[in-house]
Amino acid sequence: MPEQLEFDQAHQTLQDVSEAIDQGRFVFVRRQLQDMEPEDIAQLLEASPRKSRDVLWQLTDPEDYGDILDELSEDVKDDVVAKMAPETLAEATEGMDTDDIAYVLRSLPDDVSRGVLAQMDTADRLRVETALSYPEDTAGGLMNTDVTTIRGDVEVDVILRYLRIKAELPEATDTLYVVDQENRLIGNLSLTTLVTSQPDKQVIDIMDDADEAITVDTKDSDVASLFERRNWVSAPVIDDNQTLVGRITIDDVVDVIREDAEHSMMSMAGMDDDEDTFAPVIKSARRRSVWLGVNVLAALTAASVSNMFESTLEQMAAIAILMTIVPSMGGVAGNQTVALVIRGLALGHIGDSNQKELLRKEAAIGFLNGILWAIILGGIVMLWKEDIVLGLIMSGAMLTNLFVAGIAGVSIPIILKKMDIDPALAGGMALTTITDVIGLLVFLGLATVFLV
Amino acid sequence: MPEQLEFDQAHQTLQDVSEAIDQGRFVFVRRQLQDMEPEDIAQLLEASPRKSRDVLWQLTDPEDYGDILDELSEDVKDDVVAKMAPETLAEATEGMDTDDIAYVLRSLPDDVSRGVLAQMDTADRLRVETALSYPEDTAGGLMNTDVTTIRGDVEVDVILRYLRIKAELPEATDTLYVVDQENRLIGNLSLTTLVTSQPDKQVIDIMDDADEAITVDTKDSDVASLFERRNWVSAPVIDDNQTLVGRITIDDVVDVIREDAEHSMMSMAGMDDDEDTFAPVIKSARRRSVWLGVNVLAALTAASVSNMFESTLEQMAAIAILMTIVPSMGGVAGNQTVALVIRGLALGHIGDSNQKELLRKEAAIGFLNGILWAIILGGIVMLWKEDIVLGLIMSGAMLTNLFVAGIAGVSIPIILKKMDIDPALAGGMALTTITDVIGLLVFLGLATVFLV
Repeated sequence: MPEQLEFDQAHQTLQDVSEAIDQGRFVFVRRQLQDMEPEDIAQLLEASPRKSRDVLWQLTDPEDYGDILDELSEDVKDDVVAKMAPETLAEATEGMDTDDIAYVLRSLPDDVSRGVLAQMDTADRLRVETALSYPEDTAGGLMNTDVTTIRGDVEVDVILRYLRIKAELPEATDTLYVVDQENRLIGNLSLTTLVTSQPDKQVIDIMDDADEAITVDTKDSDVASLFERRNWVSAPVIDDNQTLVGRITIDDVVDVIREDAEHSMMSMAGMDDDEDTFAPVIKSARRRSVWLGVNVLAALTAASVSNMFESTLEQMAAIAILMTIVPSMGGVAGNQTVALVIRGLALGHIGDSNQKELLRKEAAIGFLNGILWAIILGGIVMLWKEDIVLGLIMSGAMLTNLFVAGIAGVSIPIILKKMDIDPALAGGMALTTITDVIGLLVFLGLATVFLV
Repeated sequence: MPEQLEFDQAHQTLQDVSEAIDQGRFVFVRRQLQDMEPEDIAQLLEASPRKSRDVLWQLTDPEDYGDILDELSEDVKDDVVAKMAPETLAEATEGMDTDDIAYVLRSLPDDVSRGVLAQMDTADRLRVETALSYPEDTAGGLMNTDVTTIRGDVEVDVILRYLRIKAELPEATDTLYVVDQENRLIGNLSLTTLVTSQPDKQVIDIMDDADEAITVDTKDSDVASLFERRNWVSAPVIDDNQTLVGRITIDDVVDVIREDAEHSMMSMAGMDDDEDTFAPVIKSARRRSVWLGVNVLAALTAASVSNMFESTLEQMAAIAILMTIVPSMGGVAGNQTVALVIRGLALGHIGDSNQKELLRKEAAIGFLNGILWAIILGGIVMLWKEDIVLGLIMSGAMLTNLFVAGIAGVSIPIILKKMDIDPALAGGMALTTITDVIGLLVFLGLATVFLV
């Protein structure tokens, strides 16, 4: 009988193990680790502060090292690998998929990775070196070379006998690839078709034609979007000569999807998406200060706008008190639009054909919300500061800034993308700078003209 | 020979089709649509302004309606379905998976969905009604009931004969489920094991024990994290009596992963993650204004803090000019931490056992970056405003606020999560309010004490 999975259990284990580490009960920890799947140990490592990680790694069965490394995120993996000897690493990679070994080796310093390769047998080394020769963010970098190929002119029962002699198929195999003498892909035979077909049928008559295949240089995000749309579990990869060179499986694609989505979220907050939750303080502080430096420029830009209105501010403190409201609302409204556009760009929904329509729509939303909040905030200011003109100035600035925010929210990510700058990273900051500057200019400008 | 996929082609089609719609060349559009896969038509609909969507839908072969609806995001699907008659909808759902029909029906008004159900044959209707009885965000809502079950005491060649008689297996079948007489799950037989085993082997000897199974009430995000960690392609779902009730396939899980990740990103910008890129203006404006309303409260809170220092602001305009810098830097630094913590919470990396360590680490980072930017901005202010005391005040406020931002950035999302409030939605706004208030209080407070 299967046990029903308890999801609180994972957190309980985490709690138990970290307490045990603190108390030095290493035998208990080792026993816990022996009962855990490699992917759960990886999760435990990610969730552990750095000093506990070292202890955990020492207490883990080295047999599991390879599978665990494969599941760790970039930064945590680097952290763990940095302390391993090349021989231990080479042993750990035994039995791992080629693409996963390449993933581990890529992040190592060149001499260490050469050391690990030197420890492998020739066949394995050549396979891994081939995988390393493709850029990491392409189909070539994602694929595995363990394809099972068959010929088209044989019968189903011959295939079954062949597979029984092989006795094992690579993980996540759902399809056999049908190739010609030159190893060019001509069709796919899914296992479901194989097991439901009569033994005397010829492969060529029951296979699906290979009408779509991924090439080695396809970008990994394009691979992910194809898998998502076509509901594939695996897909063949061919080179420019139509030769079958490997296959990509859904588990690696899921990682790409997760990373791409995390990338947008983390970048929008000015964070590196590789950042380990328990990264070293100095390293994190340095990485993050880059973004704070960009914000210093943005904040000083805003300050120099208000500086232009120094004499106005001198004459009326109420203006200084209220001047932050307009940029704040513009920033929030504009960032709503930026998030929508970044998602649309990532999903491939936004292109030359519909940008204008999107701009019209977001400008209209900005205008409508501008009117709403101009009335509300104008009213609040009139009542609070008992000044009708000041209220009207607030209204005018609010309407202008929310309208500008809608237009800038669409234009900025699209322009950044055209300039090959990541809109998720730079979009929000650029938008906020514009809404700050416009908001302050209009509010302080109107105040200068009508109040002082 | 497979064609090599051209990813620019999708955008080209989009461009061509939308031009053709504008010019009324509907024959061309219909021909284009006939050549496209349903999932690509779905993509085209999502990327099209609303008025083009209607035309596209009219020109699409009704045979494809079901598959297209299944691929559309919530809002776009609602938009399209709203214009369909129940009979057309019932026809469209023929041949769709039960879970996908349930997905389409869930979003319909009750009377329409009853109308559609009434048009189905009894067996289908019962299956769909069962699916509808599970909450949408649980394993029950994700699963499909088309499981292929076998007994443990039969031989491999009997299974193969049985499958050949069936002649077809449900999509994405990679495993047959082994059940006892009461339909309780006792094991899994993967197709790869089936095709590599000798014909006289008994199922019970070659199957994997069902040591982990998902129950119907498991949350969909927990299902997704299990699939990700275990690299599953499909998984059985059991009820409280260990009875096999369905299976979940990776394609539906990928949707959950994508939606969860998008949810974090969109929520952090105060957006509904269902929002259609081309949603109606009024609907969007209303949805977004809720978040702007929350921000009005935050902005007014900040304004009332500066209001407390009205007399200080009256005496020195430079203070008003500089007072926005400290809250701005605190907001950016704090939101970096918030993004890290939200991701950690979503991945299950943060729990009771490591919160303190995380707090210490983020406070240290805040302190370090606080010192750095205190020195830089203090220096800039001294040079710009030629006022050493004002520079020191800037430094003190900056250091305090970045330190507070680190602490608040960890605490706020964790506290919100404990209160069952979505940290992705409320975290950033709560953080910004705190860094605004603290930043202004400290900067204006110090200025009041030391300068006026």
